[in-house]
Amino acid sequence: MSMQTGRRVGVAFVGMGGAVATTAIAGIEMIKSGSNRLDGLPLAGLSVAGLADYKDLVFGGWDLNDDDLASAATGHGVLTKQDIENGAQVLKGIKPWPAVGSAKFCKNIEGANRIVAADHREAVSVIANDLRRFRLESNLDEVVVINLASTERWPNLDAPALNSRDAFEKGLDSSDEAISPAMLYAYAAIQSGVPYANFTPSVAADIPALLELARENGVPLAGKDGKTGQTMMKTVLAPALKARALHVDGWFSTNILGNRDGLALNDKDSLQSKLNTKGTVLDSILGYPVEDHLVHIHYYRPRGDDKEAWDNIDVTGFLGQRMQIKVNFLCKDSILAAPLVIEIARVLDLAKKRGESGPQEQLSSFFKAPMVANGHGPEHDFGKQQHMLLEWLGGQQ
Amino acid sequence: MSMQTGRRVGVAFVGMGGAVATTAIAGIEMIKSGSNRLDGLPLAGLSVAGLADYKDLVFGGWDLNDDDLASAATGHGVLTKQDIENGAQVLKGIKPWPAVGSAKFCKNIEGANRIVAADHREAVSVIANDLRRFRLESNLDEVVVINLASTERWPNLDAPALNSRDAFEKGLDSSDEAISPAMLYAYAAIQSGVPYANFTPSVAADIPALLELARENGVPLAGKDGKTGQTMMKTVLAPALKARALHVDGWFSTNILGNRDGLALNDKDSLQSKLNTKGTVLDSILGYPVEDHLVHIHYYRPRGDDKEAWDNIDVTGFLGQRMQIKVNFLCKDSILAAPLVIEIARVLDLAKKRGESGPQEQLSSFFKAPMVANGHGPEHDFGKQQHMLLEWLGGQQ
Amino acid sequence: MSMQTGRRVGVAFVGMGGAVATTAIAGIEMIKSGSNRLDGLPLAGLSVAGLADYKDLVFGGWDLNDDDLASAATGHGVLTKQDIENGAQVLKGIKPWPAVGSAKFCKNIEGANRIVAADHREAVSVIANDLRRFRLESNLDEVVVINLASTERWPNLDAPALNSRDAFEKGLDSSDEAISPAMLYAYAAIQSGVPYANFTPSVAADIPALLELARENGVPLAGKDGKTGQTMMKTVLAPALKARALHVDGWFSTNILGNRDGLALNDKDSLQSKLNTKGTVLDSILGYPVEDHLVHIHYYRPRGDDKEAWDNIDVTGFLGQRMQIKVNFLCKDSILAAPLVIEIARVLDLAKKRGESGPQEQLSSFFKAPMVANGHGPEHDFGKQQHMLLEWLGGQQ
Amino acid sequence: MSMQTGRRVGVAFVGMGGAVATTAIAGIEMIKSGSNRLDGLPLAGLSVAGLADYKDLVFGGWDLNDDDLASAATGHGVLTKQDIENGAQVLKGIKPWPAVGSAKFCKNIEGANRIVAADHREAVSVIANDLRRFRLESNLDEVVVINLASTERWPNLDAPALNSRDAFEKGLDSSDEAISPAMLYAYAAIQSGVPYANFTPSVAADIPALLELARENGVPLAGKDGKTGQTMMKTVLAPALKARALHVDGWFSTNILGNRDGLALNDKDSLQSKLNTKGTVLDSILGYPVEDHLVHIHYYRPRGDDKEAWDNIDVTGFLGQRMQIKVNFLCKDSILAAPLVIEIARVLDLAKKRGESGPQEQLSSFFKAPMVANGHGPEHDFGKQQHMLLEWLGGQQ
Repeated sequence: MSMQTGRRVGVAFVGMGGAVATTAIAGIEMIKSGSNRLDGLPLAGLSVAGLADYKDLVFGGWDLNDDDLASAATGHGVLTKQDIENGAQVLKGIKPWPAVGSAKFCKNIEGANRIVAADHREAVSVIANDLRRFRLESNLDEVVVINLASTERWPNLDAPALNSRDAFEKGLDSSDEAISPAMLYAYAAIQSGVPYANFTPSVAADIPALLELARENGVPLAGKDGKTGQTMMKTVLAPALKARALHVDGWFSTNILGNRDGLALNDKDSLQSKLNTKGTVLDSILGYPVEDHLVHIHYYRPRGDDKEAWDNIDVTGFLGQRMQIKVNFLCKDSILAAPLVIEIARVLDLAKKRGESGPQEQLSSFFKAPMVANGHGPEHDFGKQQHMLLEWLGGQQ
Repeated sequence: MSMQTGRRVGVAFVGMGGAVATTAIAGIEMIKSGSNRLDGLPLAGLSVAGLADYKDLVFGGWDLNDDDLASAATGHGVLTKQDIENGAQVLKGIKPWPAVGSAKFCKNIEGANRIVAADHREAVSVIANDLRRFRLESNLDEVVVINLASTERWPNLDAPALNSRDAFEKGLDSSDEAISPAMLYAYAAIQSGVPYANFTPSVAADIPALLELARENGVPLAGKDGKTGQTMMKTVLAPALKARALHVDGWFSTNILGNRDGLALNDKDSLQSKLNTKGTVLDSILGYPVEDHLVHIHYYRPRGDDKEAWDNIDVTGFLGQRMQIKVNFLCKDSILAAPLVIEIARVLDLAKKRGESGPQEQLSSFFKAPMVANGHGPEHDFGKQQHMLLEWLGGQQ
Repeated sequence: MSMQTGRRVGVAFVGMGGAVATTAIAGIEMIKSGSNRLDGLPLAGLSVAGLADYKDLVFGGWDLNDDDLASAATGHGVLTKQDIENGAQVLKGIKPWPAVGSAKFCKNIEGANRIVAADHREAVSVIANDLRRFRLESNLDEVVVINLASTERWPNLDAPALNSRDAFEKGLDSSDEAISPAMLYAYAAIQSGVPYANFTPSVAADIPALLELARENGVPLAGKDGKTGQTMMKTVLAPALKARALHVDGWFSTNILGNRDGLALNDKDSLQSKLNTKGTVLDSILGYPVEDHLVHIHYYRPRGDDKEAWDNIDVTGFLGQRMQIKVNFLCKDSILAAPLVIEIARVLDLAKKRGESGPQEQLSSFFKAPMVANGHGPEHDFGKQQHMLLEWLGGQQ
Repeated sequence: MSMQTGRRVGVAFVGMGGAVATTAIAGIEMIKSGSNRLDGLPLAGLSVAGLADYKDLVFGGWDLNDDDLASAATGHGVLTKQDIENGAQVLKGIKPWPAVGSAKFCKNIEGANRIVAADHREAVSVIANDLRRFRLESNLDEVVVINLASTERWPNLDAPALNSRDAFEKGLDSSDEAISPAMLYAYAAIQSGVPYANFTPSVAADIPALLELARENGVPLAGKDGKTGQTMMKTVLAPALKARALHVDGWFSTNILGNRDGLALNDKDSLQSKLNTKGTVLDSILGYPVEDHLVHIHYYRPRGDDKEAWDNIDVTGFLGQRMQIKVNFLCKDSILAAPLVIEIARVLDLAKKRGESGPQEQLSSFFKAPMVANGHGPEHDFGKQQHMLLEWLGGQQ
């Protein structure tokens, strides 16, 4: 158990009514009330000075759907009836703030709870105002923003508006089409001095314009695309295959899932963003390109929030002989993701306190495509990522 | 590729006609003749000063069966017809030296190629003589002994003869029943100043009497029980589950294999030795006892040398929700083991050169139950083991 | 939906507090009250004259544990909390009658709710009295007994007491040790003119003495060992492999389950009974002996009542080339078994009405080791069994 | 073994250089020479009057690639080196006849061994001539044509040319674009009185124009799309799920394969044809639409000709509880297909002898989308299909 700091930390989720956010919030509220244990929280066993306590987290956030969190959670089917009853009083009392959305960037998701804003600049101003109000009303020492919204399509990264701070500011004024909703949230957070993490595959703070802004404002960043199921396994297995010099001839990965995320990924453009962050992990760890690395994600309703991955790995060993490894992971997407999101918030808060800014590489183990400082590529080996995290925390087990 | 040292290193296998030894020998001979690549050899890509080159390895060894290696290899069905043809000239020319065996320690394996010796002492003397002759005739700079014999039953570790050097010496004179064949080979090697590794689950050098002798004689040791398939996977996956705080409720492991090793394991006593070395790995990595950790090994002929493992892992995550991971490893036992055996020989040779003695912990990644110096338990986390090995080697990738 | 007959049929379970019986009873009571659909009931879609309606079934039975069924069901963890609440009023009102048990025949199961009887004869008389009382008090047109008790060890089938009606009668008087509890129930039922089915692997009515009695008394019989998960799959897949002339070289079957049945099977003697009924299915369908047919059952608590089977099948096809099929069945033992038990009761009642007696082969699809009339072996091919059942019923889909 | 009839039957393959045809030919030639057993040949154990003996089959056929069969087989990697050596003399002597191909109907397949023909009419005439020459030169009693060419895109079935005999004849004259290469072969065969089977998913004889012609000419037909791996499993498992009233909520099927067929299916249009024939099987057997029935096929080179299927089936049983079945089939596409092709040829020959014409429903078990006579849908239940076949043959096992 981390030490009681008394620090109150606010966590503002983009996509607060989604399965991951409601699960995270319900889980922490149940920890506060004593009906949930610390299973699944990666940093639960460590004692690290300055790390906010789970019980000192306070939640807010935006969503295009204005259902209260008890209704939202019931719809997702992740929490049990009992869980929702246990947390009902708190969950019913939380309603998402109006959100920014754009059908141009994410097709399959709809909702009427929208920020009324004439242009990008005004939208950003509403978001920043939400953060200020959250801090004041909840009497918070720090706020962290975490993007959990549905995956947006890949933006045009060559657009001038994304490539310098000045151009981005002008883009806000002119409502430049290259700027996505995720970028508006990221900008508002960074401009407000609020640490920002991107748990989705969308492009957000990881554009030159916003990286520049984060450095200037001394804001820690993390992202992107939470590493929960299949890709986590990949970054666990691939280093071992490399250590044993088993050459990976092919890696076939298929996923079936039936939640809102799955539905969003049924849109071809959003799917491509997801595959972009999944793709390079393997080659980076192995040190050579795996020519037959196929990754598929399919929307399959019977699975609901229970995501299932099936991997087939073909390797060649001594004397050119071939072997196969098959991994079938029957996991629960939001149950794996929610505790990661909580730990990311706690670590970003601590990073801010320690005076760090820009990409926080110690959080690499939580992401499929870790953001890194310039000049080197990301570390994907899960064991090494975990080592970096523990070293940075400096805690004792 | 390691640097050409010119050092000639002899590798003497206990169980030279078995599938692992014949595969290792054939593979290296084919590398010498250019018809095999370095796939599957874990240290092939490193440049480490003093590490013997693959092409400078020379092979010898003992076996109860006196078939030449071409015949033996044909029987095992690991090497392809083409492989055996490629290596035929060399393999046909190698016949195992007469060996020590005891039906009391290993029931299901037979053979007539036996050392004629009145007692333990004389047997040891024959083995030591074999090593001397091997060194001279093959003009070797160093010899390493590696035990690849079929698994023996678990010995009586409380027997006085195993617990001090003096008692062991007396036990050799009186042919004490507590002393197994594996111990005779280990003693002869250590006494001859020859590095010794135990790739089997049998108890051999890891008794107080022989550990004492190794320290006195400055002999490096390594063991035991090669970590190739299912247990390797276990030590790769378990650290990740721990890092994610996913509580392991149960781990069901079943193996099917149809080679000579599998047949030996059909003997209940030998199987118990195997399970002993497999058992504690998980609890050690996770830091708590997994109450439902079941490991089964079954002799199943259709699989031949192709070992197959099926693992089912039950974990509990956030909010007490449960998930499952299933791993199906269609591996080839000897193809995975042979290159490890070769690397162990090379590292032990280098350790001797570097003046080290006793258990060589840097070789932990190659063993299910790594031998360690007194005072601390073994490291089982595969990633950390690999790190230790690379650190010790100090090589450059 | 079968036609409403108005016939009231009593089903008396041996082992009424077990997972299968409580699931069957709760399911039917919930159908009566409208909170359960007909999913999983094999004959639900057919219209067959004379077949009792699900709503006209009434339940009673014996158990060594005298917990009311709501408590028992809660302990098994098969029914959801909601299910138990829905059926609570009825389930709480049902308590098992005192039962006959013998530690000599089934070790791992205990309970204090025992019939007080000086000898076998008196025990039989108590059971017969229970059936009479059940019929009267519940105003039943017919009663059927179904054995769902934990698996007993294999009896000594050569014992004279089991091999003729007269010797069995004398054995009852002398409390012959060869007579198991299951046989006492079977005798009492048959003697009372009550159809009897054995859903367990125990030997019960399938001994010469009781077969003789059943024919004399005009009592239909069925058994034995319910075919739910892995063996059902085997009898579905094997006929297809045969049709395609794919030669089965080996079939490795492993099961993990964590319910009371699994615990009982941890006793070696009970396990052997189970394996006896599982073993011959394959050879019978294929027409040749599968030399490497291994079947394992392991008690593994994390699985609870969720039984999991993993099968690996090795086949040889054209040109001697080999292929593999792997089947992983994540099933729920009692959820699969309960509806079969209900259909068996309905069909036995109809058989009695149609004047049939002795083994009812049309029920073969429900059993691992179908009882058959003398002179021919059982049909194991699932498709052919299903055809037999539908033909016998003569119903319309 | 079927009785020696002395009848010489020629089998002319469209796509003779492909993996299935070369495997079939090599296998039969090796049976003739005694180096292959009858494993995998479904009708090998039956004695049926009039059924041609395996040894009396003679092979010919067309292919866009003019490699001799030994070269072609080496390229496919299905036959072992030893197999090819055993059959070398015969295989080297066989070269495919020039073939008809159209990039409009099948994109990813190329080859220069093309029939020189000014129009459709002339192409048909060349094919018919090939059949006449084959019959004469090989002194055959009967010839059968079997289409094994790569899958064509789905044609425009509303095109007038496909919908009546007269229009088709005109279409031949005008080289109507609606007529595919597969249809040219089918027409030429039927016109020549030669039985025709379509083992591919392409549309060929199953258009009104050609069905009409077949009836007029008394020619037996069969097709389409050989049922070897995943779909066969589906038609084996689904009837059992139905018999047990387990409701199929979803069935996710994925396939990986790396042979020429896989490459052709990488073309979206050809893939659609394949999926068309795979899709309806499940709903037809179960009697209700499975809303989440997903079927994917991926070209994955490491698998080569070893096709692998992974199926996940979600079912709901008693009390609404859900279960899962996962099937992993590591099969060999051509090894499964080749013997089916041979049996189809033998049965079509027998059908012709028996005076039958039009779709031969007794061959349903060999096809994913069995051709049937008008007025009723196809039978997909594998067990019932097998029963139909055995009944029609009237043989004795």
